[in-house]
Amino acid sequence: MSVQVIAIDAMGGDFGPRSIVQACIACLSVTPSLHLTLVGQPSLLEELISSHSAVDRSRLTITPASEVISMSERPSHALRSKPDSSMRVALELLRDGKVQACVSSGNTGALMALSRHVLKTLPGIDRPAMVAAVPTQTGYCQVLDLGANVDCTAEQLFQFALMGSVAAQALGIARPRVALLNIGTEDVKGNQQVKEAAALLQAASGLHYIGYVEGDGVYRGEADVVVCDGFVGNILLKSSEGLATMISSRLEAVFKRTLFSRCVGALALPLMRRLQADLAPARHNGASFLGLQGIVIKSHGSAGAQGFQSAIERALIEIHEDLPKRLHGRLEGLLP
Amino acid sequence: MSVQVIAIDAMGGDFGPRSIVQACIACLSVTPSLHLTLVGQPSLLEELISSHSAVDRSRLTITPASEVISMSERPSHALRSKPDSSMRVALELLRDGKVQACVSSGNTGALMALSRHVLKTLPGIDRPAMVAAVPTQTGYCQVLDLGANVDCTAEQLFQFALMGSVAAQALGIARPRVALLNIGTEDVKGNQQVKEAAALLQAASGLHYIGYVEGDGVYRGEADVVVCDGFVGNILLKSSEGLATMISSRLEAVFKRTLFSRCVGALALPLMRRLQADLAPARHNGASFLGLQGIVIKSHGSAGAQGFQSAIERALIEIHEDLPKRLHGRLEGLLP
Repeated sequence: MSVQVIAIDAMGGDFGPRSIVQACIACLSVTPSLHLTLVGQPSLLEELISSHSAVDRSRLTITPASEVISMSERPSHALRSKPDSSMRVALELLRDGKVQACVSSGNTGALMALSRHVLKTLPGIDRPAMVAAVPTQTGYCQVLDLGANVDCTAEQLFQFALMGSVAAQALGIARPRVALLNIGTEDVKGNQQVKEAAALLQAASGLHYIGYVEGDGVYRGEADVVVCDGFVGNILLKSSEGLATMISSRLEAVFKRTLFSRCVGALALPLMRRLQADLAPARHNGASFLGLQGIVIKSHGSAGAQGFQSAIERALIEIHEDLPKRLHGRLEGLLP
Repeated sequence: MSVQVIAIDAMGGDFGPRSIVQACIACLSVTPSLHLTLVGQPSLLEELISSHSAVDRSRLTITPASEVISMSERPSHALRSKPDSSMRVALELLRDGKVQACVSSGNTGALMALSRHVLKTLPGIDRPAMVAAVPTQTGYCQVLDLGANVDCTAEQLFQFALMGSVAAQALGIARPRVALLNIGTEDVKGNQQVKEAAALLQAASGLHYIGYVEGDGVYRGEADVVVCDGFVGNILLKSSEGLATMISSRLEAVFKRTLFSRCVGALALPLMRRLQADLAPARHNGASFLGLQGIVIKSHGSAGAQGFQSAIERALIEIHEDLPKRLHGRLEGLLP
């Protein structure tokens, strides 16, 4: 039986180590081939583990790390001044081949900076991108970048398109339709980076570039891969989460008004709740950092134990697919 | 009785002159103090008018213009090469004081470029911004810019914040909470323009700046005015429209499955449809160009006659509020 070993940055995230340890123990009980090493302050982690019963300690180890990166810390500071942070030590375990993936719910900017520094990117890739699946009228769409890269050059957008296409293929879409997110579909629309990226994609062979898609086109399912810079992607994702929540609560308010509508609500609300969870894939399932020499999953800071558990499951899928190797092989053929 | 005179760019938009003429005649019948001049090709417009009965031609005139700006035309081309376009002639009527507002459903970029060129901006304002109201958990929020300015400097974002605050006050909010749209609420988050705009807003007196708001915070109603560049604002608005449509159609599909759920649907669907219309204010009501020496309303290209009628009504409100003068007065006190 093959074994999966994952390093867990146990100190990051809004909820702290308690819910991370809880998520880890839940995953271990579900997946017998899984081994986890919690990276962080040993005494604290031992205490949290000891509050759970029947933990298979042969599959749950602790790797000491004395420092913690806070959620508001500057990435440059985390990189320069904290050689023994839980995040960094977890990434070093991955770099040294001691684990097959790393999961963190810590500071996104710091995770990005440290991942690049410790693991390095794949040949031909300048910066990793965060990707997650967004539901559409016809299925799902991979959107990247979701916030790891605030400003992007045309070349970076081009690389994101290549990575997104390969990732979508790994997820079972034979010929992913790749589009650039823009404020219009005419050639003259958009900023300079987007226009230049369009020219690069038009000239590229080996991927199915379909042109520009607008904000509403994303949800109409016009593309399988939607490419944008991290600022725009983050606003798209979070505003969608906010809107879905607002629609849910407006519907709930109406459905609570009368007896009849309470019956109606019994039908409509579960659907709305499922949709809401569906619309927050990065929050619930973790987002993947594509383009690194290793598997790094970012669990949403406010996701709690359930979200962290989903992020570990996502790491397991990427280990099974051997995604970085697959990306590397395809990129060699695609990049100029 | 005071009279309102509005110039209509009768040749622009996806639906063309027919639905524009229809909208104009509907508005004239509702508002007896309204006078409209249709700007465009006289023979075509006369023919369209003659297909309607009982039109009060004393309040509906035609101003000839021989050229039309297409939806995909480069703004620079429209500016340089078409001195007699319907859009330009309509704006010149406004500049010359012959009308009090101008409404167009034509090419947004061209309308922006021509408005700036013909009307000029208010003192202290570099570029006009497009603003529309977005519904939130607690009411409405003015979002700007919605696509007129693809790239923005910190100074422009600062000016948008001032204009949005004044516009929100004109709409009845005594002390509008002004926020910058960003990918996090911590100080270190965001791109350079947003960080610099935050510093400018923190130092400004006379407006209630509350800091950063994230995509989900917009819909939670955390601010009355949300400021962003036109690329981000356009993606926010259009993706919200797309998501609302997707949620509606998913709910419809569920509600159509059984007899009971069809009854349920009778309750839920009107609510969803209202929300959908509510989420497309720029599409349905027109967006206002703030910061010009004159009132210019952009009706959404695909809005049809109903949308164009709403845009004329919006122009009437701004004429009543004398919004440019009000903005000018407040800006004098607020700008450095």
